[in-house]
Amino acid sequence: MTHILAKYLVDARYEDLPANVRKEGVRTLMNWVGVAVGGSREDPVKRSIAALRPFSGPPQASLLGRTERFDIMNAAFINGVSSHIFDYDDTHLKTIIHPAGPVASAILAFSEYHPVSGKDFLNALVLGVETECRIGNAVYPNHYDVGWHITGTCGVFGSAAAIGKLLGLSEQRMVWALGLAASQPVGLRESFGSMNKSFNPGRAATNGIFAALLAAQDYTSSDGMIEAKRGWANTISTKQDYREITEGLGQRYESLLNTYKPFACGIVIHPAIDAAIQLRNQYHLTPDMIARVDLRVHPLVIELTGKKTPQIGLEGKFSIYHSVAVALIDGAAGEKQYSDQAVRDPRTVALREKVTATIDPAIQPQQVDMTITLKDGRKLHKFIEHAIGSQEVPMTDQQLETKFEGLTDGILSQAATRVLMDRCWQVESLPSAAAIAQAAVPQG
Amino acid sequence: MTHILAKYLVDARYEDLPANVRKEGVRTLMNWVGVAVGGSREDPVKRSIAALRPFSGPPQASLLGRTERFDIMNAAFINGVSSHIFDYDDTHLKTIIHPAGPVASAILAFSEYHPVSGKDFLNALVLGVETECRIGNAVYPNHYDVGWHITGTCGVFGSAAAIGKLLGLSEQRMVWALGLAASQPVGLRESFGSMNKSFNPGRAATNGIFAALLAAQDYTSSDGMIEAKRGWANTISTKQDYREITEGLGQRYESLLNTYKPFACGIVIHPAIDAAIQLRNQYHLTPDMIARVDLRVHPLVIELTGKKTPQIGLEGKFSIYHSVAVALIDGAAGEKQYSDQAVRDPRTVALREKVTATIDPAIQPQQVDMTITLKDGRKLHKFIEHAIGSQEVPMTDQQLETKFEGLTDGILSQAATRVLMDRCWQVESLPSAAAIAQAAVPQG
Repeated sequence: MTHILAKYLVDARYEDLPANVRKEGVRTLMNWVGVAVGGSREDPVKRSIAALRPFSGPPQASLLGRTERFDIMNAAFINGVSSHIFDYDDTHLKTIIHPAGPVASAILAFSEYHPVSGKDFLNALVLGVETECRIGNAVYPNHYDVGWHITGTCGVFGSAAAIGKLLGLSEQRMVWALGLAASQPVGLRESFGSMNKSFNPGRAATNGIFAALLAAQDYTSSDGMIEAKRGWANTISTKQDYREITEGLGQRYESLLNTYKPFACGIVIHPAIDAAIQLRNQYHLTPDMIARVDLRVHPLVIELTGKKTPQIGLEGKFSIYHSVAVALIDGAAGEKQYSDQAVRDPRTVALREKVTATIDPAIQPQQVDMTITLKDGRKLHKFIEHAIGSQEVPMTDQQLETKFEGLTDGILSQAATRVLMDRCWQVESLPSAAAIAQAAVPQG
Repeated sequence: MTHILAKYLVDARYEDLPANVRKEGVRTLMNWVGVAVGGSREDPVKRSIAALRPFSGPPQASLLGRTERFDIMNAAFINGVSSHIFDYDDTHLKTIIHPAGPVASAILAFSEYHPVSGKDFLNALVLGVETECRIGNAVYPNHYDVGWHITGTCGVFGSAAAIGKLLGLSEQRMVWALGLAASQPVGLRESFGSMNKSFNPGRAATNGIFAALLAAQDYTSSDGMIEAKRGWANTISTKQDYREITEGLGQRYESLLNTYKPFACGIVIHPAIDAAIQLRNQYHLTPDMIARVDLRVHPLVIELTGKKTPQIGLEGKFSIYHSVAVALIDGAAGEKQYSDQAVRDPRTVALREKVTATIDPAIQPQQVDMTITLKDGRKLHKFIEHAIGSQEVPMTDQQLETKFEGLTDGILSQAATRVLMDRCWQVESLPSAAAIAQAAVPQG
């Protein structure tokens, strides 16, 4: 398996990518750059910078949204952290992997060190996403269920594959890069709700670069590290479906299944937020009209986001109660609705206490069934089959731009934001992908 | 559990260490420095240097046995690799963890960046070893059996704990350091036989430093990352015995169970080598006197080391026949006896063909029964109950020095070797532990 995948990665060219795959790759990049800039003023980024500055190598690569420069591995880490802080990045719904974080962080930093054309950049991004998502498919859901943060454990393969591609590794060296990547999984679900969650895609990016750089110098690994008896899949999961890794390489693309979040929280809450906003807008609801809100949800929703009384903004993202409350009050669930202030707002607290969520095994994870009982006795009902931002109801390019502008607001000027968005949309025509990172640095 | 362990680590002082624990800590250090210098000219070290040099931070820390300097995290990685290349480092037999690699690599590099007294250094070493071995006990053997390289997965906790101690972290920050460590396990058994094996203790050292540095800047993790439902132990093992982590902290020390290899090969051949050297020395044997050598061994010995005609040095380590032959000829089985040249030496080849090994289920893995038949008809017999280097028959300090000298031969002068060994023995009186690293750098 490892060899088949490595051979594909070595041979795959930009010219082979179908137009829809290229387009989705560009959208993936666009969405990721926005969230990475958006997170750049947050504590996890500041603390990472303070911790790592004394040890960084040459100032090879930019931090998105900031003026400091670090060596490519530390820059990739910090950008990876930044892009996941708001939990607002892209999602491969089949595995709940956030694909861009580990891969884009790695290749964007690398492209400032080593010349990479926009076309090669996009190819590496698509191949990295392909690698991590296919490996994720092979072990999901068992691997995730037991406790691994699949973005970090699979993401390291994506980073190694993409950097290995940009380094032009031979098949054997690509096998070693994947083997060294297999040796460095990152992240446990227990850390959700702390800064450790955004640590994971960042560290996966670094580890993948580290693996590929060593392999490029003939630092060896074993040949079947993904599939062998004592290899990654057998060690880290009770399910191994290797066809997911090798079947249809170059024919079906996991990149096409990538989605972007309209709301700044875990995807399992999106149907409930979507329902709340739709009912709010349709019936012009205000909090004082609402007697109670009843949700029927998939069990995972309560497991992941069952926090009843969040105390800080980050905890709010793991609270379906808070999320429904702000959606009903503001008609939105962006970063502003998940500030520390927002979770302590008395109006929000009062409304979230009226929200009840009941597990219903008949409800799929992407669905919700919401009933709002008004004080006047009316019952309003909304069943969401697929939320906005899902594959079935994707965000439009325009919606991605609006999201992007909201994230860069206060960090980049409107003019700079326009330039940065244009470079993302036009990545394929850039002589050097480093132009994207450069445009993400605030001027003056 | 994580909090109990963190509190212990924060409170534990050098002055609390019993004399025998201090002594074993010094022996652990001594053995580790020797193997780290010994590996410093091997390909995995050279290739790591080539790969990482363009990205290293300031030249903060030495590479043992070399003149290059790297930032502390890259230096810790490379020294950790170097110390495990020969598979000649220390072993905590209860878990098969090689304890020093992840911990000593980290704290020695750190001590060149941040002032650390010899006493604090030794305390951190003991605490790091305690942390990784106790966590290892909690999940061994299931965790190892499924495929994890336990030195890398538990070693990261040892490194984080030791660096956290040297940074003077509060209990809360130590909890976060352990949590970020839990997020970065390293190593799969599938990689054994490749350079990836020595990668693992090195990367564990780096990851532990990374975790502690971030925690020191209030980069948070969750509070129960070792024991919580989706935490490390439940995710990574089917066995969790948390008493191993928390019972008798500061009373019983896993450090006391550490052992050192007298011979540069897998531990299952050690009884046979011990028997051969004892008979050789007792009867002043030379190869021309020997008609045949008959061994009765546990089945595992043949399974693991049954290679009859090794062609390269590394294969010699998996040949009980070669090992017995060199032991009879040289009275030793160090790295020199496992060179490519050594396995092709005609005298060795001739003698190894006279060695026969027979499986005897009555023989334990740690035992051997050897009969040497001389050409004059005499039969010499030796039964080994516990080989030299076991916990029951530990290597003497003098034997550790002989091993050390063999490893540094050709890298450091005899005078420099003496200075380095003395600094190790006298670590507790050093004003700065950095003096050890400095003495391990070749002069001129």
